[in-house]
Amino acid sequence: MPTHTPLLDSVSSPADTRGLSIAELKQLADEVRAETIDAVSVTGGHLGAGLGVVELTVALHHVYETPRDILIWDVGHQAYPHKILTGRRDRIKTLRQGGGLSGFTKRAESEYDPFGAAHAATSISAALGFCAARDAKGEDNAVVAVIGDGSLGAGMAYEAMNAATDATRQLTVILNDNDMSIAPPVGGMSAYLANLVSGGAYRKARKLGKTVVEKLPTPIRDAARKAEEYARGMVTGGTFFEELGFHYVGPIDGHDMDALVSVLKNAREFKEKPVLVHVVTQKGKGYAPAEGAADKLHAVAKFDVVTGQQQKAAAGPPSYTKVFAQELVKQAAKDDKIVAITAAMPSGTGLDIFEKAYPTRTFDVGIAEQHAVTFAAGLAADGMKPFAAIYSTFLQRGYDQVVHDVAIQRLPVRFAMDRAGLVGADGPTHAGSFDIGFMGALPGMVLMAAADELELARMVATAVEIDDRPSAFRYPRGEGLGLELPAGPAEPLEIGKGRIVREGTSVAIVSFGTRLSESLKAADLLAARGLSATVCDARFAKPLDLDLLLRLAREHEAIVTVEEGAMGGFGAFVLQALAQHGALDRGLKIRTLGLPDVFQDQDKPDLMYAEAGLDAEGILRGALSALGMDNVSAAGRRA
Amino acid sequence: MPTHTPLLDSVSSPADTRGLSIAELKQLADEVRAETIDAVSVTGGHLGAGLGVVELTVALHHVYETPRDILIWDVGHQAYPHKILTGRRDRIKTLRQGGGLSGFTKRAESEYDPFGAAHAATSISAALGFCAARDAKGEDNAVVAVIGDGSLGAGMAYEAMNAATDATRQLTVILNDNDMSIAPPVGGMSAYLANLVSGGAYRKARKLGKTVVEKLPTPIRDAARKAEEYARGMVTGGTFFEELGFHYVGPIDGHDMDALVSVLKNAREFKEKPVLVHVVTQKGKGYAPAEGAADKLHAVAKFDVVTGQQQKAAAGPPSYTKVFAQELVKQAAKDDKIVAITAAMPSGTGLDIFEKAYPTRTFDVGIAEQHAVTFAAGLAADGMKPFAAIYSTFLQRGYDQVVHDVAIQRLPVRFAMDRAGLVGADGPTHAGSFDIGFMGALPGMVLMAAADELELARMVATAVEIDDRPSAFRYPRGEGLGLELPAGPAEPLEIGKGRIVREGTSVAIVSFGTRLSESLKAADLLAARGLSATVCDARFAKPLDLDLLLRLAREHEAIVTVEEGAMGGFGAFVLQALAQHGALDRGLKIRTLGLPDVFQDQDKPDLMYAEAGLDAEGILRGALSALGMDNVSAAGRRA
Repeated sequence: MPTHTPLLDSVSSPADTRGLSIAELKQLADEVRAETIDAVSVTGGHLGAGLGVVELTVALHHVYETPRDILIWDVGHQAYPHKILTGRRDRIKTLRQGGGLSGFTKRAESEYDPFGAAHAATSISAALGFCAARDAKGEDNAVVAVIGDGSLGAGMAYEAMNAATDATRQLTVILNDNDMSIAPPVGGMSAYLANLVSGGAYRKARKLGKTVVEKLPTPIRDAARKAEEYARGMVTGGTFFEELGFHYVGPIDGHDMDALVSVLKNAREFKEKPVLVHVVTQKGKGYAPAEGAADKLHAVAKFDVVTGQQQKAAAGPPSYTKVFAQELVKQAAKDDKIVAITAAMPSGTGLDIFEKAYPTRTFDVGIAEQHAVTFAAGLAADGMKPFAAIYSTFLQRGYDQVVHDVAIQRLPVRFAMDRAGLVGADGPTHAGSFDIGFMGALPGMVLMAAADELELARMVATAVEIDDRPSAFRYPRGEGLGLELPAGPAEPLEIGKGRIVREGTSVAIVSFGTRLSESLKAADLLAARGLSATVCDARFAKPLDLDLLLRLAREHEAIVTVEEGAMGGFGAFVLQALAQHGALDRGLKIRTLGLPDVFQDQDKPDLMYAEAGLDAEGILRGALSALGMDNVSAAGRRA
Repeated sequence: MPTHTPLLDSVSSPADTRGLSIAELKQLADEVRAETIDAVSVTGGHLGAGLGVVELTVALHHVYETPRDILIWDVGHQAYPHKILTGRRDRIKTLRQGGGLSGFTKRAESEYDPFGAAHAATSISAALGFCAARDAKGEDNAVVAVIGDGSLGAGMAYEAMNAATDATRQLTVILNDNDMSIAPPVGGMSAYLANLVSGGAYRKARKLGKTVVEKLPTPIRDAARKAEEYARGMVTGGTFFEELGFHYVGPIDGHDMDALVSVLKNAREFKEKPVLVHVVTQKGKGYAPAEGAADKLHAVAKFDVVTGQQQKAAAGPPSYTKVFAQELVKQAAKDDKIVAITAAMPSGTGLDIFEKAYPTRTFDVGIAEQHAVTFAAGLAADGMKPFAAIYSTFLQRGYDQVVHDVAIQRLPVRFAMDRAGLVGADGPTHAGSFDIGFMGALPGMVLMAAADELELARMVATAVEIDDRPSAFRYPRGEGLGLELPAGPAEPLEIGKGRIVREGTSVAIVSFGTRLSESLKAADLLAARGLSATVCDARFAKPLDLDLLLRLAREHEAIVTVEEGAMGGFGAFVLQALAQHGALDRGLKIRTLGLPDVFQDQDKPDLMYAEAGLDAEGILRGALSALGMDNVSAAGRRA
């Protein structure tokens, strides 16, 4: 639906906003909002967060001299309006598509994205780096970090605020408080912010518009300043941030352009210490279907702009996420020691389903993966059976805790590693590429990958039974194969045993995870060439099924391992085991297929798999290369 | 020196302290202090921290019914007095020795260690896990987490405090505030605590002893409670913790047994919400040589109890740490873009040396590895050349930031990974076992390991030059080989190129890191058996020197890779590369030697290397196994 955007049409870069009046800025914001809705209706993607910061985005680019002043958005999924204003309007309908704009901020895309994002709570740390670099170079630009209230639950944000000192000049942190990350927020910080916003000062400020601006003090010293801070803290409640060394301003209405521009102008000029501007926004603001939705249309499919009705995907099989959650519910019915932990992703991990069945056995700790892992370790140490459901990419945040608190203590925490492997439109920041290596390297860990949803259910059951050491199972984004699942709880697997899915003679394809179906297709392609392939589902990367691997090595001319993970993972473990047992001594044509040694850009999953050489054709190429029947080494892609 | 400890002699477990009077508890504390000093004078180890918590330890075990009540020490290096009181007195002089007590808390050691520790800031998360497990089981024990003020800079501690809610019952967090972690603390939280302690309320409390106890309120609600909290906050300043949902009590004098026992008794009974007791202690308390030392004798060698004089190690070559720092100083003299970052380890990483030369180019961010990495990424994004010097094991804390903020953005952050590999007496929690795998898996990363101190200096120079992508170099704890270093800055290496150190014919030993010297010894042992070995220093795990590897594979019957790291690392990368290039197709006797797939317990380094099969004898065994000349497969240890 074409939108009428006369003012936006005249703005080709943020510099064009600098001379606009407040009234024009308001109009510009309205046009950016319409443009954002229009774009996302075509592309799908993140909508609610962007709509909430339209005024803030316009005000920031109006007041700060971007790109000379550094503007860093946290997470970046709220940055579509920012992209529209910073020279990317013509490509805005390529968002999240192959070759198109990223759904997050990205350095390679624009000089207006000085620091890319996607995981939460990185912006203040990065901003402090820009401040230090600026000071080292004797420059004087301002630095702005925008961070959401949900991200404030992450320890990293606190580490960064703690590191900002009185000597940190010209740093403004914008706390974008919409009382909502992806799910409603949790924890003490959230309650604290809610209390601030419900306080009298905010209500008064909304009425009076700019009065809050007057609160910016002239420099005063020590005791007097502290007294002043506490006094203001008792009114506005911002002592938490004051105690960490920030000058706190707010809360202010994030949709009031007058207030925003005034406060930001003051913040930009304030040079005594870092400033935190607490801006209250409404996720989904200005678009009725979003304002009315429970999730404020956080992430959407393509939709009809007038009705807000999203295109329904053709009804497919249940997602792996859902299968995991439903199986955990079944297991929990017969074992009251089972509890589940999520780090701010109840819906994404399926634990909202578990929570409905077992509210007191579900723990959402907010965006706090470090805490989530050690909290789970504490539960395990006291005899519970914790399932920590964390996306593969986010588990990187808790890696030290996995090593130090779980693995070294050999505590039976169960890691449900969702979104393992490629993730399509979410791109490289969300891909789960490294977990096989970083989990499989840990002594005592049991590491599984599900070939299909039936296998996933069985791995949940297996993890329930593994009570003397940690375990982890990985499964991908998206739908299962549509296999029928048993009504009752699934049966556990024998630990460390793989299975032969198809018997052959010349080449053995050993798959770890959901590439099994493509491996079977590759076997068909090989059969069409008169080559007989065994296909094996390894199930376990740790402990490996050494007997099976040695037998496959003995009985086949070639072996191809297949995994949706980076180098140093399953294929590497297989090679090391075979080498150590002498199975390579007399020659074994072996190739390890996995993710290529690049960060693959967003695209349609099928295209990404093809690029990675992990589709049937790619696996065929790997097998032919191993057999010496193809001059093109598929595996060479990884070099 | 035998100490006179009549009361301690009568205490065989914490239960024996429960009936003691305050006067007796004071005496017991004095005796425990004497015993601690005596033990550490013999074993070496952490002294200052333990001496600071003697009274606190006695009071905690007196008031709380350990082990039924859960007591979790953060880090654990202050827990020697705790070990003396909890049935480990007879083994206290085995601290940090092979087969002896751990220098940290450890579950396997005692039921009084419900959760082990070593890395900072895990205790509150674990405690919350114990609370949740207790509630799930319908039990009613109390849970206590002790955490130092230095650990409060870590985001993980904040995540945990944020996760505690009013519904968290019978949780007491003891903030052990000695204004000192290992180095003097940094950041806003530290300044805040200093302000609390310097305030009038604390001075008054010290005089009046127990009056602070009276501050524990009866339950009051909402507005009234908030008002009360702010009122107290203005006196004692504890609003930061109140805002996160804790009832704040303090500060109290951590060496005043009367105050400690009274406050802890009240805290144990207080059930409305979690309690934070702010205890001020003096590191090194009660032992003049420690009180007088700048580092409060944080960690010591064996020493003379009367004088405090530590045994000097025989003057050896400079440590790798020192060589790194001195080379960085040289490089920084000719490149003003070089800056250095440490996470609370200025002395441990050698950056105290760098800081002396370049104070404004050195950043100590406190115990905050997540922030440290992304802060470095911000510096790199704005054109600086940041060196983040972080122990391998602590870099696990910042892994997601390495992936998401550094590697995906291909920012030239340089990671100086100290303490890579085994670390002797510090044991498994401090071993740097996994970095080769978790860093080497990242696209674009340059990953080096130094074979000796000359190589380390050259790798520093190399990292300076790598300005288009991230790089990392690893080096171990301890001294170099004593090689003479050039006076001027070192020469950079050619990226991705290894070197042949010794030419041979039958077996190629490919070493990555400081096991090169043992590899050369192994070559001697092979020569004594009439076998000719090539010895190669790989220098790079990424990018691999593929030409060299393929040549070695062609020209030798066998290859043995050697690294001080876990499976999925250098040897795995070599195998994957060789497989992909067909070098295994016609047979290659190859073995990958590395750390065994267990967490090795503390011991003398030589014994640990022998256990790992990474000494000359172990490498010899690997080579013989590869050559089929030995029935014992050294590599089999890893299966």
